[in-house]
Amino acid sequence: MSEAIASSSSRSELEERFSEVRDCSMRIAARLSPEDALVQSMPDASPTKWHLAHTTWFFETVILSKLPRYKAFDPAFNYLFNSYYNAVGPRHPRPQRGLITRPSLEQVFAYREYVDAAMLEAIGEADRIDDIVLGLNHEQQHQELMLTDIKHAFFQNPTLPVFGWDERHACRVDQSDWSRQQGGLVEVGATSNRTEFAFDNERPRHQVLLQPYKIATNTVTNGEFAAFIDDGGYRRPEFWLSDGWSAVQSEGWSSPLYWLGGDRGEWTVFTLGGEHPLNLAAPVQHVSFFEAAAFAAWAGKRLPTEFEWEAASRDFAFGSVWEWTRSSYDPYPGFKTFEGMAAEYNGKFMVGQMVLRGGSIATPRGHARSSYRNFFPPNARWQFSGIRLADDWE
Amino acid sequence: MSEAIASSSSRSELEERFSEVRDCSMRIAARLSPEDALVQSMPDASPTKWHLAHTTWFFETVILSKLPRYKAFDPAFNYLFNSYYNAVGPRHPRPQRGLITRPSLEQVFAYREYVDAAMLEAIGEADRIDDIVLGLNHEQQHQELMLTDIKHAFFQNPTLPVFGWDERHACRVDQSDWSRQQGGLVEVGATSNRTEFAFDNERPRHQVLLQPYKIATNTVTNGEFAAFIDDGGYRRPEFWLSDGWSAVQSEGWSSPLYWLGGDRGEWTVFTLGGEHPLNLAAPVQHVSFFEAAAFAAWAGKRLPTEFEWEAASRDFAFGSVWEWTRSSYDPYPGFKTFEGMAAEYNGKFMVGQMVLRGGSIATPRGHARSSYRNFFPPNARWQFSGIRLADDWE
Amino acid sequence: MSEAIASSSSRSELEERFSEVRDCSMRIAARLSPEDALVQSMPDASPTKWHLAHTTWFFETVILSKLPRYKAFDPAFNYLFNSYYNAVGPRHPRPQRGLITRPSLEQVFAYREYVDAAMLEAIGEADRIDDIVLGLNHEQQHQELMLTDIKHAFFQNPTLPVFGWDERHACRVDQSDWSRQQGGLVEVGATSNRTEFAFDNERPRHQVLLQPYKIATNTVTNGEFAAFIDDGGYRRPEFWLSDGWSAVQSEGWSSPLYWLGGDRGEWTVFTLGGEHPLNLAAPVQHVSFFEAAAFAAWAGKRLPTEFEWEAASRDFAFGSVWEWTRSSYDPYPGFKTFEGMAAEYNGKFMVGQMVLRGGSIATPRGHARSSYRNFFPPNARWQFSGIRLADDWE
Amino acid sequence: MSEAIASSSSRSELEERFSEVRDCSMRIAARLSPEDALVQSMPDASPTKWHLAHTTWFFETVILSKLPRYKAFDPAFNYLFNSYYNAVGPRHPRPQRGLITRPSLEQVFAYREYVDAAMLEAIGEADRIDDIVLGLNHEQQHQELMLTDIKHAFFQNPTLPVFGWDERHACRVDQSDWSRQQGGLVEVGATSNRTEFAFDNERPRHQVLLQPYKIATNTVTNGEFAAFIDDGGYRRPEFWLSDGWSAVQSEGWSSPLYWLGGDRGEWTVFTLGGEHPLNLAAPVQHVSFFEAAAFAAWAGKRLPTEFEWEAASRDFAFGSVWEWTRSSYDPYPGFKTFEGMAAEYNGKFMVGQMVLRGGSIATPRGHARSSYRNFFPPNARWQFSGIRLADDWE
Repeated sequence: MSEAIASSSSRSELEERFSEVRDCSMRIAARLSPEDALVQSMPDASPTKWHLAHTTWFFETVILSKLPRYKAFDPAFNYLFNSYYNAVGPRHPRPQRGLITRPSLEQVFAYREYVDAAMLEAIGEADRIDDIVLGLNHEQQHQELMLTDIKHAFFQNPTLPVFGWDERHACRVDQSDWSRQQGGLVEVGATSNRTEFAFDNERPRHQVLLQPYKIATNTVTNGEFAAFIDDGGYRRPEFWLSDGWSAVQSEGWSSPLYWLGGDRGEWTVFTLGGEHPLNLAAPVQHVSFFEAAAFAAWAGKRLPTEFEWEAASRDFAFGSVWEWTRSSYDPYPGFKTFEGMAAEYNGKFMVGQMVLRGGSIATPRGHARSSYRNFFPPNARWQFSGIRLADDWE
Repeated sequence: MSEAIASSSSRSELEERFSEVRDCSMRIAARLSPEDALVQSMPDASPTKWHLAHTTWFFETVILSKLPRYKAFDPAFNYLFNSYYNAVGPRHPRPQRGLITRPSLEQVFAYREYVDAAMLEAIGEADRIDDIVLGLNHEQQHQELMLTDIKHAFFQNPTLPVFGWDERHACRVDQSDWSRQQGGLVEVGATSNRTEFAFDNERPRHQVLLQPYKIATNTVTNGEFAAFIDDGGYRRPEFWLSDGWSAVQSEGWSSPLYWLGGDRGEWTVFTLGGEHPLNLAAPVQHVSFFEAAAFAAWAGKRLPTEFEWEAASRDFAFGSVWEWTRSSYDPYPGFKTFEGMAAEYNGKFMVGQMVLRGGSIATPRGHARSSYRNFFPPNARWQFSGIRLADDWE
Repeated sequence: MSEAIASSSSRSELEERFSEVRDCSMRIAARLSPEDALVQSMPDASPTKWHLAHTTWFFETVILSKLPRYKAFDPAFNYLFNSYYNAVGPRHPRPQRGLITRPSLEQVFAYREYVDAAMLEAIGEADRIDDIVLGLNHEQQHQELMLTDIKHAFFQNPTLPVFGWDERHACRVDQSDWSRQQGGLVEVGATSNRTEFAFDNERPRHQVLLQPYKIATNTVTNGEFAAFIDDGGYRRPEFWLSDGWSAVQSEGWSSPLYWLGGDRGEWTVFTLGGEHPLNLAAPVQHVSFFEAAAFAAWAGKRLPTEFEWEAASRDFAFGSVWEWTRSSYDPYPGFKTFEGMAAEYNGKFMVGQMVLRGGSIATPRGHARSSYRNFFPPNARWQFSGIRLADDWE
Repeated sequence: MSEAIASSSSRSELEERFSEVRDCSMRIAARLSPEDALVQSMPDASPTKWHLAHTTWFFETVILSKLPRYKAFDPAFNYLFNSYYNAVGPRHPRPQRGLITRPSLEQVFAYREYVDAAMLEAIGEADRIDDIVLGLNHEQQHQELMLTDIKHAFFQNPTLPVFGWDERHACRVDQSDWSRQQGGLVEVGATSNRTEFAFDNERPRHQVLLQPYKIATNTVTNGEFAAFIDDGGYRRPEFWLSDGWSAVQSEGWSSPLYWLGGDRGEWTVFTLGGEHPLNLAAPVQHVSFFEAAAFAAWAGKRLPTEFEWEAASRDFAFGSVWEWTRSSYDPYPGFKTFEGMAAEYNGKFMVGQMVLRGGSIATPRGHARSSYRNFFPPNARWQFSGIRLADDWE
């Protein structure tokens, strides 16, 4: 990408983009107290403070630490905000992110300012534009996680605090229809001509062979999912994968995450804007892959593969919810990880996870694209994850 | 398949095959005491007695119970030996298979005789040959599990009992070489002309597009794997998938399962024939997918996908160890489960598992084929599972 | 005791007693299949085969191994049937007793015969009578555990096998009354004049000071306990100790162990003689200390301390059920463990356990006495454990 | 107590005492950030914010809510800061205290001010002086916990933050000697003449009978404990209770909590004032009952019972560390819980815990007394807990 950007855009455009992305994280943080920003409500989630510091650490480590004149803000941060650190040693218990009360949120804000200033200076002279763009995309990923993680944390508080962000601006779904796709040899993945950013896991672009298939033009609605519940969906093992049925029982699932009040006969949902009546016409959210697959089985359909999804993606709108696919998260043929520090970016997670495609209302603008491969374990529900159906074309 | 068999073979051939497969299970059981046959050494394993009864239950339920004159051997067996039963109810704890001391092994032998007699009679007149052949293949799968499960159970006994079955008859591996494969559009999966049995997960046969690649003509040896250990393989996170590294640490892995004596400087292995010095020229066995992938990373290579494996399988010998592939266990395009009782056979396990190809010394003769898709979770080590390397052809 | 026995009884009496106790274990085993004798249904329980071998190991280790001419039956047994062995080593998983299929039950029978013969010879000349008597009392403790453990194991089998031992011979309880006790300085514990066997934890005999109190002349009946259930006893935290209430919720307790059918409106109980209607006049059994204490709180009474129980024990009958006391299992003042091999007998368990007094229908005849201190963790329910109430005398 | 106080002290003295105790909590909080005050580093510990709010809730619930004119500060607080609340309901996960980011620390400060004002008004007219004094003692207990809990939390942070409170002011121990005690009938427990506050668990005062014994005049030092470590104390099962040895292995204990650097040959300790070299002459702290009992066994001595400790307590100084006794936490004869709201204060925890006597450097002045019964589970180490030896007098 560096060439493309170097030729097609001025440095000032990159500076502007840098500031824009970094500010967006701060706008999320602005709604939170120091305590809100510390909390970690489950091992899979991270505190906002950690997200803010970790995305900053990324720029400091990948870009700034290579510059001879740069002085680290605080050497301890390299350890504290590295995402993959292991236990400190035999006598020191493994720290959990939610226990790191110090540095304070204020100090993390200062860290961000310090690094931002150094970065803006570096952009003016840098030849490492690729890594800067990677860092911005990395931060956008974390912006979505900030929202999903704080939503999960607030849901643990019996008083159901209001974050104050309206989830309803993408809430209505038109009547769905089937789009018929011929299949055949199609190209998938991000191009390598570097005019657009893509993660390593989207490459190389390559051909796959698809059978003819049908894919829904809209995602499944809350109303459709409620019909599945009303038909005993959560109590009938015949619709579920074996591990999915185990999860239903061990976790006591009987509706999507954040649905409340089913026992009182009327669903409400907990959102970042507070508790609201369930909008039956909006896309269902916060379902696991297991629930998506069970719904599809109940409907007599199936989920699309990630390649079916990508090949048809110009024929439907997406971006309201991440859409579970029937594809495990495996490497593309010829997959190469990023080089250097970023080598561990994606490849080491390629087992036990399912691919999601699309993007959600929490995804930063400009961060979604049809080749984007999001991935989570099949029981994850705290993302804005929904369902699109597919079927064989017979 | 029924037509094919009906035309190409006499009923007496099916009777002979039935007796042969059923006898093979009894020959395994003959080496065990009633106590050996009861033990369940971990949740993933099952007692031999359960395997013997469950494979019999399959014929009783799928074939015999449909015959008007058949009288069940014992109605309780339908519950006890069904593989997917759930908890009995709120006040009754979930039974574990290893706790079912009654019926006794003798009674299970009587059950087998009773069902065998009824089956031989039924074969003489049956039009359900497909399901009978499925039942025999099902029993062959369980024959391999009987061996792997009893091996694991005996390994828990500090006296290391000897089962008395020589694992060494397929122990030498020639110098490995690279077979270069052009890739392109290749056909994979079992044909549907039904002249040969195949499981539902091997169908439909379909085309896939492969890039050019190289694949090793032999599997990795104990000696090669020992070099990985000697080079710190189990202590260096850079070779491991993230979940794999977690498993190394939480399980304390430092060698393949059943390797002993590394701390004394000289490896031995526990086998069904007792403890032996490690044969460095034999294929490495009892490694997990995580270990296979880490070994490949250490060697600067990768594992083949299941389709690369299948497309090249006529160019090398296989059958000594199951070979982990880099493919998650996903359904084939157009996948349909078996109909009726057998519908739950394979499809419901299609998440969180990796595909193994080939077959092992424990696989019954005639049960292995190049389209066969075995599958286990990525941390499973108690199968006879090994490694074949691949690489891109650049 | 040795002097007393040496003076008051002939060696032939000790031989007779030895044979009698050893035969009793074999009579229990005679009702079991090899598989029944292997099973271990929870970590707290042990297989019958292990009980049979461990009690034999005790005599071999404590008595026979000291004799110059004795040759061990099998050196491996010292490891396998020692009750406190730890993991074999870093690479060998910790064996569970229920996984030790070999030696077989037959071999354990042979082991018992071999040791019995050597013991009868040794008794003729031994000067270690104390240790022999300890071994016999040790075996009697295990005889009760054989019954409680096999009952628990059979209860896991959905077919509810019948062991064939009638639990009902001590089943009727008279109307209870209060026995008023003056308290004051009373002597408790076993005398040290050695005319009667006692465990180390019953000594030294010493004075304690008791306040005046009342104690029930009979134990609580099933009918009385059913009234507690009917009054919401298992749903009302106000009756429960904090840890007890946690156990109710995490274990889902809603009745004593082995009670069935409450949801169908009519209680039955699983016994070693099969499933029977609940006898409302019989003593309640298979309650934990937590349930005993909650029942007492519900009844507006309390449990007696172990010393109140002992001081009043000549004023009531006991021996149908072990009776939970309000006393933690602490050492007596001046407590000394047995010397030598038996030093670990009792003292190392003196934390986190509650004292039970009395004896049950499963306790071998002649093994119960008023100074006997049985002990189990407060959540244990698989013993024949019941309730006697007490109160302050105001 | 109310009479005594009413007669011997003016209301203004109670007002002064109230302000003094309440201010002390605020002085602890003043050293903490909002994030520090939120963190909960293990289930046994609580956030400072919770301690601050819970002690306030106690006054609001026990005193103020009974006054007709009092208006609750926030009705939700009754739920959030009650110490024994259970899960909110089937669909709402159980909140953990460390996840309650809102109300903020500032709001909790406001809550304290609001309640303090109402309380000072109420004291002027109250006739419920007993409950007010109970509330102040309750708050003093929590002040000690604030220190132990924040110490544990800070220890999880790899940067080892400094709280800034010097633990060393009670750090030197004189050479210990034996005090010989005659025993006999001695009185223990708090008197009921109500001139001094005592918790329900210290009453009624009663006689116990003690054998002659010896008790150390000083507590065990770091240097003495280091000798135990050097002699293999943590690797030799013969010194340990059975459950203690299990804890050593499962928790990986090899020194008291907060000792660092043993692998580098020189001990340091983490304190609320930062990391310091280990003072060998200071009392050992942060050991569990299991470690205390193992040390005593290694030294050929034993721990005192709680009554031996109390009877001899005028013959030695105490108050540097809580001292584990060999007594389980059982009720005194004739024990009655406080009445009303406070009924659950102590009695419901009387199982599975060991008694500690004395008081520590973290115990508020005036809160320690010789009849005080502190109690913790035998594996707890995060309190300022140490060891005093005793022995039989033979």
